[in-house]
Amino acid sequence: MPVFLNTRDADFEPRFRALLEAKREDAPDVDATVASIIEDVRARGDAAVIELTERFDGVRLTAATLAFSAEEIDAACASVPDDEREALELAAERIRAYHARQTPDDARWTDPEGAELGWRWSPVEAAGLYVPGGLASYPSSVLMNAIPAQVAGVERLVICAPTPGGAVNPLVLLAARLSGVETIYRIGGAQAIAALAYGTETIAPVDKITGPGNAYVAAAKRRVFGKVGIDMIAGPSEILVIADADNDPDWIALDLMSQAEHDESAQAILVTDDAAFGQAVAQAVLKRLEMLERRAIAGASWRDHGAVIVVRDLDEAAEISDRVAPEHLELCVADPDALAAKVRHAGAIFLGKWTPEAIGDYVGGPNHVLPTARSARFSSGLSVLDFMKRTTLARMTPRALKAIGPAAEVLARSESLQAHGLSVAARLARLNREGQG
Amino acid sequence: MPVFLNTRDADFEPRFRALLEAKREDAPDVDATVASIIEDVRARGDAAVIELTERFDGVRLTAATLAFSAEEIDAACASVPDDEREALELAAERIRAYHARQTPDDARWTDPEGAELGWRWSPVEAAGLYVPGGLASYPSSVLMNAIPAQVAGVERLVICAPTPGGAVNPLVLLAARLSGVETIYRIGGAQAIAALAYGTETIAPVDKITGPGNAYVAAAKRRVFGKVGIDMIAGPSEILVIADADNDPDWIALDLMSQAEHDESAQAILVTDDAAFGQAVAQAVLKRLEMLERRAIAGASWRDHGAVIVVRDLDEAAEISDRVAPEHLELCVADPDALAAKVRHAGAIFLGKWTPEAIGDYVGGPNHVLPTARSARFSSGLSVLDFMKRTTLARMTPRALKAIGPAAEVLARSESLQAHGLSVAARLARLNREGQG
Repeated sequence: MPVFLNTRDADFEPRFRALLEAKREDAPDVDATVASIIEDVRARGDAAVIELTERFDGVRLTAATLAFSAEEIDAACASVPDDEREALELAAERIRAYHARQTPDDARWTDPEGAELGWRWSPVEAAGLYVPGGLASYPSSVLMNAIPAQVAGVERLVICAPTPGGAVNPLVLLAARLSGVETIYRIGGAQAIAALAYGTETIAPVDKITGPGNAYVAAAKRRVFGKVGIDMIAGPSEILVIADADNDPDWIALDLMSQAEHDESAQAILVTDDAAFGQAVAQAVLKRLEMLERRAIAGASWRDHGAVIVVRDLDEAAEISDRVAPEHLELCVADPDALAAKVRHAGAIFLGKWTPEAIGDYVGGPNHVLPTARSARFSSGLSVLDFMKRTTLARMTPRALKAIGPAAEVLARSESLQAHGLSVAARLARLNREGQG
Repeated sequence: MPVFLNTRDADFEPRFRALLEAKREDAPDVDATVASIIEDVRARGDAAVIELTERFDGVRLTAATLAFSAEEIDAACASVPDDEREALELAAERIRAYHARQTPDDARWTDPEGAELGWRWSPVEAAGLYVPGGLASYPSSVLMNAIPAQVAGVERLVICAPTPGGAVNPLVLLAARLSGVETIYRIGGAQAIAALAYGTETIAPVDKITGPGNAYVAAAKRRVFGKVGIDMIAGPSEILVIADADNDPDWIALDLMSQAEHDESAQAILVTDDAAFGQAVAQAVLKRLEMLERRAIAGASWRDHGAVIVVRDLDEAAEISDRVAPEHLELCVADPDALAAKVRHAGAIFLGKWTPEAIGDYVGGPNHVLPTARSARFSSGLSVLDFMKRTTLARMTPRALKAIGPAAEVLARSESLQAHGLSVAARLARLNREGQG
């Protein structure tokens, strides 16, 4: 059974803290293994990648077959049924429209001293997207990673997607094609991350790596961070639903289960101001669990990490939610905008009862790559900005240098950085000699 | 002597590659030590921090003296000479004015299907700024880290600044006060990062940690990344100057030395289309090195990592610069804007000969915390955005759900995520029953 908490109970605080601090994932310590895989790929390139792929995925590749051929991709795309193709196209179109609004503005201005200041944004040149194999190989994630990169203007976009036992998901290849990715390597794990970061004879290195993965992928991303950019270290998915009694318990139960079915480590939390409604949702979950195909996974998630929290009112609900800082937050209340205004930390907010979280996973438009494990306190979902960088601009005129240069000299002296000061002083001396400025 | 390269030479490419790939820093492997320090601070809190501070900094603290008292800060601020106070105030004012323009806009719109979409930005609640002790304790860095956080609206800003042997830089305390930081802990190293990330009895945990530090600090930041946000793993400073022959060789020499004097691992590169000018700058560097206070450091940097690269023309200069992706890029040419437009990767660009890089270190306005070690290919300097996060918003109406919900159902089925599909289907079934939408 999930945890039932009530903020009125004397032991609420320690029990809520225990829920917050519970470790949901047994992260195996794969760091040493990953370090040696990375070293191997750096030293031996393609040969190492090919050997490791045979060992871990049971697939024998050559340098020539590391990437899918255009014919293979064509064939896979052609095999996708019409309804799935159309749904994927609608999703791609809506995701593109949303992300197109994120393109940041450049700026340039002249300040009162005559200094021209500003910044400009430019895209990363090359990005690599990691797509997990097996059950977690989601075409929707391909769109969510590749389209922001494409909108940002990334020139070279590649995918690494392992094909354990040779299995390929044709929808993943179609999603890649819909989002402008032409090169798809059938490799995975730490060896794929190493190849993307350092390059091999066949695989050109990229500047940024995004996408979810298992413990090996996560450890490898942490290790190559700095050599290349990474998105985030993703943890298991979470949802927190704030719902008042004016909701269908079955809808809320399904929303909770739509996270729980991802992973036994996923977490689904209901926060409600009505204890009886909380019980009704818990009943509805049990009923739905009887029929769900993934009931083993969803049931384990709900049993081990699920929670129903009864609060005094919606203000308190917002406070509780902020302490969780959930990846996904559903506000199934009469005035979801008013409640959203009280919330500070959430990856994505779904407003009102007609907005099940699953809409956001596929076709809503916003990105579904979102901060997990309370990291919404300090980080954001994936966006166009993740594939761009900002260069700051400054241009002094003689007048501006005369106005602010002396302060720089003083500060350089105070920091014992003599050449810093002299580089300003030499220019000011010329201006003073020439009477300019 | 620094490396002299000419793009016309047959061996240019391998020699330039060697320059790019040269390891400038001997990063000691302190990871195991750092891991045990972090565990110790998590397990024993204040006691561990106090013991480690005595061991590493030779300073005995108690829980009550972990932070500077208001009186100590008052006294330190009062001891700062007027010219230094005024220079610091000017710098703070200009940095604040620049960063105030970075506050991002929220967005909200309704799409043709009737879905309301958007996002909103909110500040991180608490941030910790690391300020190195000893020689690298720069008041300017306090401003550059704290002011963007303050502009972002961070409620609680704290500093950790070790005081090895009890030494305190009063300008650091004044800079903290000028940028809204009231709490300054006199602790450093991995123990300070651990305390900021996990909290102790006395030190409340923060959500984001920024600021430069030594190998221990860098390793600790890498380890706590995910539990809290971090800015970047900073490497030694770099400058690349593109200068034509119409420059004073002494100015360019001083600009190169203003990076070289930071650190023996710093790198200063001149790119010029005039070989004789390149020689003249190298001569000017040698002359300046005779008189610089930090000639041992600057000389070692120039000797081991400096370079003069002669190019055919300025287009080629931009290409070379992009391969370096320098932290600081000076464009001392007749039309710096035209050249800047050809550059893709740089942390900060200084336009024209009246803009020595040192202006940007102190009073220009843009941030001086910038991507090093070629990471300008994929990352940006510190900004207000580093202290904010974005929450995406979506609200479906019955009409919008009818329009796009079926595609979500198809995709959920294709990903074998049944509850995802059912959460949409249950709502659509109601609409169909009621004839709404």
